Amino acid sequence: MRVLGIDPGYAIVGVGVVDYIGSSFKTVYFTAVTTPAKTEFSLRLNSIYTDICNIIKEYKPDAMSIEKLYFNTNSTTAIEVAEARGVILLAARRLNVPVYEYTPLQVKQSVTGYGRAEKKQVMELTRMLLGLKKVPKPDDTADALGLAICHAHCASSLLFNKNI
Amino acid sequence: MRVLGIDPGYAIVGVGVVDYIGSSFKTVYFTAVTTPAKTEFSLRLNSIYTDICNIIKEYKPDAMSIEKLYFNTNSTTAIEVAEARGVILLAARRLNVPVYEYTPLQVKQSVTGYGRAEKKQVMELTRMLLGLKKVPKPDDTADALGLAICHAHCASSLLFNKNI
Repeated sequence: MRVLGIDPGYAIVGVGVVDYIGSSFKTVYFTAVTTPAKTEFSLRLNSIYTDICNIIKEYKPDAMSIEKLYFNTNSTTAIEVAEARGVILLAARRLNVPVYEYTPLQVKQSVTGYGRAEKKQVMELTRMLLGLKKVPKPDDTADALGLAICHAHCASSLLFNKNI
Repeated sequence: MRVLGIDPGYAIVGVGVVDYIGSSFKTVYFTAVTTPAKTEFSLRLNSIYTDICNIIKEYKPDAMSIEKLYFNTNSTTAIEVAEARGVILLAARRLNVPVYEYTPLQVKQSVTGYGRAEKKQVMELTRMLLGLKKVPKPDDTADALGLAICHAHCASSLLFNKNI
């Protein structure tokens, strides 16, 4: 099974593609899709949509695993992050990739077995599970790989999250 | 000038197209784009994207005027509304329609001349300005027409809102 993990955002979208065969992982691709700050917002959305479509066409994932967003009253950027997440969901839908969403807690539990693990521990275990020499940078990319691992684990144990 | 007003949402998207020539309005088209509740969310986004693209292709507006979203801690649906707004902005961008955003306060001021007007007054004045017999239903559609009026007024007085 090939999973495309996505950490949604509008300045940086974390992207990670992993294969899960038997019970081991192979890292296929990871990157950060970025958009320049001083660009019209709708152009940034279009750039994200185009890049995600191209990544899906190139790597042909069986599923997209994307972080679930919650309201955080401290965040001034949540609206824009959600708008970007909308165009990412649209890219998946139009290219027939089923989408699954997970909370940060679910990712932590899946990667480390412990929902209250530190962010650094999650990243280090992500690195180990994927057999990488270094934790991928930026954090968004490492988070995207964690999301891909989470869905691979959940899908293989049939504990699916809702297909949205 | 032809303006496409949009009241964003994921269950109902208000849509209104008006022409503003000299200082009078002509109503070209209005509707509510709706998506069924028990459908996968990404399918709803795709349906909204497709419908908005088709409306743009049919009516060829010079500008889109869309409501600016704010965080409202009481709203449990703001994330989904913002995701839908993202795909609407994408539709405009991909079809080369410039997008302008306005707050409800700006719409009230523009339509009634008074920022603290009641919602009913705004709708009644929208109806009068557009020469309609009845206030369009649902409210989302009337709000979309108000947004179109607001941009027509602002654009003609060169008091543009930021092109996003």
